[in-house]
Amino acid sequence: MATPVYSGAPRAPQRGRPRDASRDDALRQAALEVMAEVGYRALTMDAVAARARAGKATIYRRWESKLDLVIDTCTHLAAENLAEPDTGSLAGDLREFLSSFAAFLSGPIGKAAQALVGELPHEPELASAFRETFLIAQRNVLRRILDRADERGELRPDAPRGMAVELAGAALIYRLMLTGDPLDLPFVDRVVDQVLLPLVGEGQ
Amino acid sequence: MATPVYSGAPRAPQRGRPRDASRDDALRQAALEVMAEVGYRALTMDAVAARARAGKATIYRRWESKLDLVIDTCTHLAAENLAEPDTGSLAGDLREFLSSFAAFLSGPIGKAAQALVGELPHEPELASAFRETFLIAQRNVLRRILDRADERGELRPDAPRGMAVELAGAALIYRLMLTGDPLDLPFVDRVVDQVLLPLVGEGQ
Repeated sequence: MATPVYSGAPRAPQRGRPRDASRDDALRQAALEVMAEVGYRALTMDAVAARARAGKATIYRRWESKLDLVIDTCTHLAAENLAEPDTGSLAGDLREFLSSFAAFLSGPIGKAAQALVGELPHEPELASAFRETFLIAQRNVLRRILDRADERGELRPDAPRGMAVELAGAALIYRLMLTGDPLDLPFVDRVVDQVLLPLVGEGQ
Repeated sequence: MATPVYSGAPRAPQRGRPRDASRDDALRQAALEVMAEVGYRALTMDAVAARARAGKATIYRRWESKLDLVIDTCTHLAAENLAEPDTGSLAGDLREFLSSFAAFLSGPIGKAAQALVGELPHEPELASAFRETFLIAQRNVLRRILDRADERGELRPDAPRGMAVELAGAALIYRLMLTGDPLDLPFVDRVVDQVLLPLVGEGQ
């Protein structure tokens, strides 16, 4: 049996039921709060419905499973919080993107992000949906930052772009999940100046 | 009230009960298997006792809590699997240590490691014991590798050692926890050759 391809988006609106975007946001917010409290495995559609003072049917009309709801919530949050910068320089773009990402991870939604990431190794379906949406979206922004830097002549010809993209994510997630050290601007600056620019930059 | 300092070691043997090291190892093995299956939060001393066909009192005679048991198990595993290399070169030492660490994480005990790391953000007591034992032990090996390289004149004077130590761990844990990409020798080689040696090495 083929694995269904994850669609990423909430279901199309049912006939006669116009979609209410602010209602969707309230439901996603409820999902986020429940996930921060109990984690992904213990999250139920009932708990999300209760938190949002909504009926369970209201939720199932929009998302067909808790996997859909959680991944759609992550994707929306990422789109809202991880805007693609275009400052005109590699250093500027990296600093802006990684600062936003660090703030996103260490801000109020960090707890839910931690719960989700911590459960990826035990939830193969969640992990693969997470990789196909959130992780690829974040990598693609970094790849486009490097592509634009290359067009401006800022990259070494043999720059290991894949490694730079991987390390940028790794450095932040390791602090979030393992060491607990702060995801602050001085750290982002060190990652950019000591690691990423020397790794891929021309004339470093 | 002061937080008790975590001791790391199993309790001293009780009067008239000589310690049996192989019995300790069997109990740690049982703890590891239970953790791989259900995670840290759901692990109980009862389940470990049942797995090891031991009485619960036998376990409590050696470890006073599941936190003690789990951290002692990790510390022992780390000591057995993460020997400190001394090959005579920075490249050799990094390659040997990170290969062992990668094999350790992706081997049979990787599942338990994933379960543990995934729960750190939600278990402050576990996280602080884990940082004070396993994480510091692993960092100290890397620090001593860099110190010896410095004595041999292999490091740049301004080498960002802390960042090198942090990135070495981050690169491996990110694959384990997030991307699921293989923790194999070609990856370790790329981390050493593309990232760590250029970051700290003299004349790179």
